[in-house]
Amino acid sequence: MSTNHLGVGAALLSLILTSTCCSCLETSRNGSPPNIVIMLMDDMGWGDLGVFGQPAKETPNLDRMAAEGMLFPNFYAANPLCSPSRAALLTGRLPVRNGFYTTNAHARNAYTPQEIVGGISQDEILLPEMLRKVGYVSKIVGKWHLGHRSQYLPLEHGFDEWFGSPNCHFGPYNDSDRPNIPVYKDSQMVGRYYEEFEINVKTGESNLTQIYLEESLLFLRAHAKAQQPFFLYWAVDATHAPVYASKSFLGRSQRGRYGDAVMELDHSVGVILDELRTLGLAEDTLVFFTSDNGAALVSAPTQGGSNGPFLCGKETTFEGGMREPAIAWWPGRIPAGTVSQQLGNIMDLFTTSLALAGLPVPEDRIIDGLDLSPVLLNSSLIDRPIFYYRGNELMAVRLGLYKAHYWTWSNSWEEFHKGVNFCPGEEVDGVTTHDQKEHTMQPLIFHLGRDPGEKFPISVLSEEYRTALQNISPVVERHKKNLVVAVPQLNMCDLAVMVRRKTVTASLLLCPFQG
Amino acid sequence: MSTNHLGVGAALLSLILTSTCCSCLETSRNGSPPNIVIMLMDDMGWGDLGVFGQPAKETPNLDRMAAEGMLFPNFYAANPLCSPSRAALLTGRLPVRNGFYTTNAHARNAYTPQEIVGGISQDEILLPEMLRKVGYVSKIVGKWHLGHRSQYLPLEHGFDEWFGSPNCHFGPYNDSDRPNIPVYKDSQMVGRYYEEFEINVKTGESNLTQIYLEESLLFLRAHAKAQQPFFLYWAVDATHAPVYASKSFLGRSQRGRYGDAVMELDHSVGVILDELRTLGLAEDTLVFFTSDNGAALVSAPTQGGSNGPFLCGKETTFEGGMREPAIAWWPGRIPAGTVSQQLGNIMDLFTTSLALAGLPVPEDRIIDGLDLSPVLLNSSLIDRPIFYYRGNELMAVRLGLYKAHYWTWSNSWEEFHKGVNFCPGEEVDGVTTHDQKEHTMQPLIFHLGRDPGEKFPISVLSEEYRTALQNISPVVERHKKNLVVAVPQLNMCDLAVMVRRKTVTASLLLCPFQG
Repeated sequence: MSTNHLGVGAALLSLILTSTCCSCLETSRNGSPPNIVIMLMDDMGWGDLGVFGQPAKETPNLDRMAAEGMLFPNFYAANPLCSPSRAALLTGRLPVRNGFYTTNAHARNAYTPQEIVGGISQDEILLPEMLRKVGYVSKIVGKWHLGHRSQYLPLEHGFDEWFGSPNCHFGPYNDSDRPNIPVYKDSQMVGRYYEEFEINVKTGESNLTQIYLEESLLFLRAHAKAQQPFFLYWAVDATHAPVYASKSFLGRSQRGRYGDAVMELDHSVGVILDELRTLGLAEDTLVFFTSDNGAALVSAPTQGGSNGPFLCGKETTFEGGMREPAIAWWPGRIPAGTVSQQLGNIMDLFTTSLALAGLPVPEDRIIDGLDLSPVLLNSSLIDRPIFYYRGNELMAVRLGLYKAHYWTWSNSWEEFHKGVNFCPGEEVDGVTTHDQKEHTMQPLIFHLGRDPGEKFPISVLSEEYRTALQNISPVVERHKKNLVVAVPQLNMCDLAVMVRRKTVTASLLLCPFQG
Repeated sequence: MSTNHLGVGAALLSLILTSTCCSCLETSRNGSPPNIVIMLMDDMGWGDLGVFGQPAKETPNLDRMAAEGMLFPNFYAANPLCSPSRAALLTGRLPVRNGFYTTNAHARNAYTPQEIVGGISQDEILLPEMLRKVGYVSKIVGKWHLGHRSQYLPLEHGFDEWFGSPNCHFGPYNDSDRPNIPVYKDSQMVGRYYEEFEINVKTGESNLTQIYLEESLLFLRAHAKAQQPFFLYWAVDATHAPVYASKSFLGRSQRGRYGDAVMELDHSVGVILDELRTLGLAEDTLVFFTSDNGAALVSAPTQGGSNGPFLCGKETTFEGGMREPAIAWWPGRIPAGTVSQQLGNIMDLFTTSLALAGLPVPEDRIIDGLDLSPVLLNSSLIDRPIFYYRGNELMAVRLGLYKAHYWTWSNSWEEFHKGVNFCPGEEVDGVTTHDQKEHTMQPLIFHLGRDPGEKFPISVLSEEYRTALQNISPVVERHKKNLVVAVPQLNMCDLAVMVRRKTVTASLLLCPFQG
């Protein structure tokens, strides 16, 4: 029922109630700000959740989380690759602003393999550093990916606790020249992947998800009765190749090892939400579930997930590379069973968390993240663009239902001819180009409502095209005008800043001077 | 809680209760068999429902129906085209058995345009004819498509009431030589599409879905208090090109006119289920929602829907052509919020309805439909193959999670070069072939669990391939051995059986002798 039926008095009352409510949004029932749990998946695709159309329906707990919370079908990563997206989450800033990009080559994706000496700058302010100011205790469980040298590690940037690794769990697995990736407990290295923390690459068996779950439960229980609010950043990685699952989940899904990993992660989500309920924390805790980038179709079908109806996957700026599954859950605060068509971005988790904690955003820098609390708590819709970057190139922009591509590129012909394919079975003529194709003078424009798969470019001769471009162009100009880029941290091919290795590693082979 | 906790006595009691329940499955609480409502969509795709991943989430009522009932992610049409699929639904038999196919050309799809003189044979037994034996009253609302000559119409084949049309609502729209399609009330023609029953092809406006809804509600109300059980076959067609919606739905979706049509149909589903509740019939009525074939990607993106992660669409025997959205709803009988991985087929609706009505299947013929009542009521899983036909050619077979293609074909090069594309943006090399490609000696095999998009054929050299083929081959042999084909009813290109026209119509252009 709208206020039309209630008259002016009631409308005013409603306004007062809304205002009162707004001023107390940030605090939970006992007066302290809410706990925050961010569940970040690794390479999980939009289409991997039952509620987003995975036919095998492997995610009853996530589907239930959606039924009890708010589902976001239009939520984006800040980058189609892991490190930059994660740095953006924790800083609320685009990778070009926080340094998580490279200038080595045009539109080059970059992350933090062991050769990289860069990492998150001391000048960047991370979410747990901010939250600490108002008494939060913070823990990260899982993959960090913001630099592996000691000055970049989580406890140097606001986290109080850590169990996990600075890097991905792939590697040479057993190579004395380039060791397997270390695993940390807080500031102490406690072992290495494939050694103390086993991953059987042949069978896919590993207990890591169970360990990550246990580490989270320990944290929740320890802080359940404290007056101190907490921030848990649960950054699990079982869906990143080589995908793994523990013994009791292996072979349970219809999709093979990848689906088994999804089922185990979904199970863990259920256990964590149940634990919050059991501890009486459910109504004092915002839980947000999402993923760092699209499913890695390059690893499909055995080690990669699904991007549902979207084009291509990880590494690309098509929808499959950056559209993410996203669910917000906060019983009693977020209305159950709602779908928000808000355009969201992983960077919003920074700003939204600050708002809920009653903190202002840092004022000395541009923050790209939006405060989604009005969306979560009042089902508002906020107009905002989505920027799709590869390296320091703005490849595409979404505004409303229109998306303009200024550059298109899947991957190079050279890679493609070696069998590397970011868009298997999805080549769209003139769209999934293997040459870097510039369209800045006349961008390719798609209507993502009737064409979520980016298969039907709108005719440049149409009125619809002209109107869409007229709306998008000033947004892009404003964005570029205000853009102050950071020193790039991920120039991995710059030998001057790289750790020396005796042998040429796989990642070095991608450097232009090698080719 | 499992019976483990209850001890042997309780387990026995549970067994007895289950057995008792089984013997009364067919009857509802007041002792008469349940009402049956089949909601059949036209060209709606698997991916058009929110619960199956449509990003715009246009189907809150269908999603709720799924949450209250049983969802089938592995449900199939009997054919990738409308007429044969509908004939199969009502006869429980494959189109090659019931005559709804053509022998004019190899693997040719065929339906019932006005030129066709064929229709459903008097030798076939239709579902309402069977149900009438035990006192059901039956109504069809919407599209018939089993032949337009008087002897083929619904009231000649068991239905008591009809509002709708024998054919599709596309046409020449205004052509005295080939008139617009008639609309019937029972046995009386009451007007024609585009004349008395307006469809504005430019704006997409039409009230037909509202009329179809009202016709259904009238039927439900009229029979609510009668002792007589009823069968409602709600065969609406707003999602078939030219797609349409009524004024209050036009412009409401993010997808344009197609999404508007989906929203209006979804709304109607909600109204019908609510009406069943209001009339106190919900617990005495099985409602089954599905579609006749995959989304028509040939009409995408403005007039076609989504097949989610599946390959190609209508007219093809890839998953996008025949995998259908499907939901069963029967409060108090079908457990709420369940997902069944049962392989289902539209022909099962015939057999399941008979079982629920307490009727045996006809014994003088092969019935392809399976009785799904153990699946619906006891969550059983029944092993069975799915056969994918085009015309009289068995193109592919699914058994478990494996699908073998004996022939691949999207459409001809000739059509393709004219811009007709059944797989836009989804060409898979060697799979979506424009030549009719035979693989009978070495079928293409896909694992539909890890590869629902049919993009990664399993290596013929692998153990997995050999095992899958060893399992599938005897099933195919048995099927072919028992196959008695009917006289083809849809040999539209046979001039001897065609209605004469002064001008050559579009459908005639497809005939081999034309080209």
